[in-house]
Amino acid sequence: MSTRGKFVTIEGCDGCGKSTQLAMLSEALGRRGIPCLFTREPGGSRIAERIREMLLDPANAEMTDECEALLYAAARVQHLREKVIPALEEGRLVVCDRYVDSSYAYQGEARGLGYEAVKAINRYALAPDVTIFLDLSPKEAFLRKHGADAGDRLESAGEAFHEKVYRGYLRIAEKEPERFLCIDARKTPEEIHREILSVLTGRGIL
Amino acid sequence: MSTRGKFVTIEGCDGCGKSTQLAMLSEALGRRGIPCLFTREPGGSRIAERIREMLLDPANAEMTDECEALLYAAARVQHLREKVIPALEEGRLVVCDRYVDSSYAYQGEARGLGYEAVKAINRYALAPDVTIFLDLSPKEAFLRKHGADAGDRLESAGEAFHEKVYRGYLRIAEKEPERFLCIDARKTPEEIHREILSVLTGRGIL
Repeated sequence: MSTRGKFVTIEGCDGCGKSTQLAMLSEALGRRGIPCLFTREPGGSRIAERIREMLLDPANAEMTDECEALLYAAARVQHLREKVIPALEEGRLVVCDRYVDSSYAYQGEARGLGYEAVKAINRYALAPDVTIFLDLSPKEAFLRKHGADAGDRLESAGEAFHEKVYRGYLRIAEKEPERFLCIDARKTPEEIHREILSVLTGRGIL
Repeated sequence: MSTRGKFVTIEGCDGCGKSTQLAMLSEALGRRGIPCLFTREPGGSRIAERIREMLLDPANAEMTDECEALLYAAARVQHLREKVIPALEEGRLVVCDRYVDSSYAYQGEARGLGYEAVKAINRYALAPDVTIFLDLSPKEAFLRKHGADAGDRLESAGEAFHEKVYRGYLRIAEKEPERFLCIDARKTPEEIHREILSVLTGRGIL
């Protein structure tokens, strides 16, 4: 019998280098022959995909923030039960690109619903064993993308929203320092990759 | 300026005579010239209708009970914000055919998710001023529909489910006797109607 696998999630603001790190991690785990599932919500669950379509449909402009948060939670539990939990039960390491912490940051903080509300709504969201947060502020991400001379274009409403998302992530880091690990994402991709492997090894996951 | 309207919900098991009572109440309020909105979820909210379609689609057999409960809560908050609250703010009496107590009875009790979970998920569901529960057990509803000689056909899985729903309603009556009012639905439609009017008058709603 295989032992239950570990559940790792990766979080970060837009432009933090998450996709690059997921690709590097997937390759490293493949080289080591570790049975794993790399997934992201809705993760191919038919019902979760249908919920996701509603969330992303620009025609649904009248959707309330509360309805949005509940739909994310509904898609999440469906993906969890259909994809994540079965893989964990097979003993696989599951790496999920964004998970409930995205709801804390986006719906809880940036939309203003609050941490406790998002926690209550996501009561069925299995806690990850560890979450890697690629810590790069929206300002730094923007400067990296557009160059230092673009600094005066930062004060848009979009930027304010992303600053709130970032603050939401930092609050989780304060609340749950054991689970939610910040990695300085200003480093090079190779340095960040080594740090992720080191964290996962230190936690007994690799 | 109009004062905020009252919010009344009506609940009961299948066959309890709810539709008859809603029609009689609507007529009585119309005769008295009381501005009101009779509604039921999803109540014509486009987004809530789309959620409802997912819930009722027989192709979605793999939907988990938790996803189902979250989708009901999502449709509920959308209907509430788009239809119920605006009508209350116009000073209208809102009468809703089923509401969060149906989730307590169906998802909480019959599906086994529990009262606290349903309460947490439905944290945005504005509490009704009063809820009328048309109290008729599934057994009595079945006998009324099919005659006393059909009593031996009651022990189906469907009947067991409806008994759990009924037990769920009775638990709410124990928890919230001030809000959740039981009316004996074995009486004649006219007697029940008079009792509903009497309750609403006693609560200062009529």
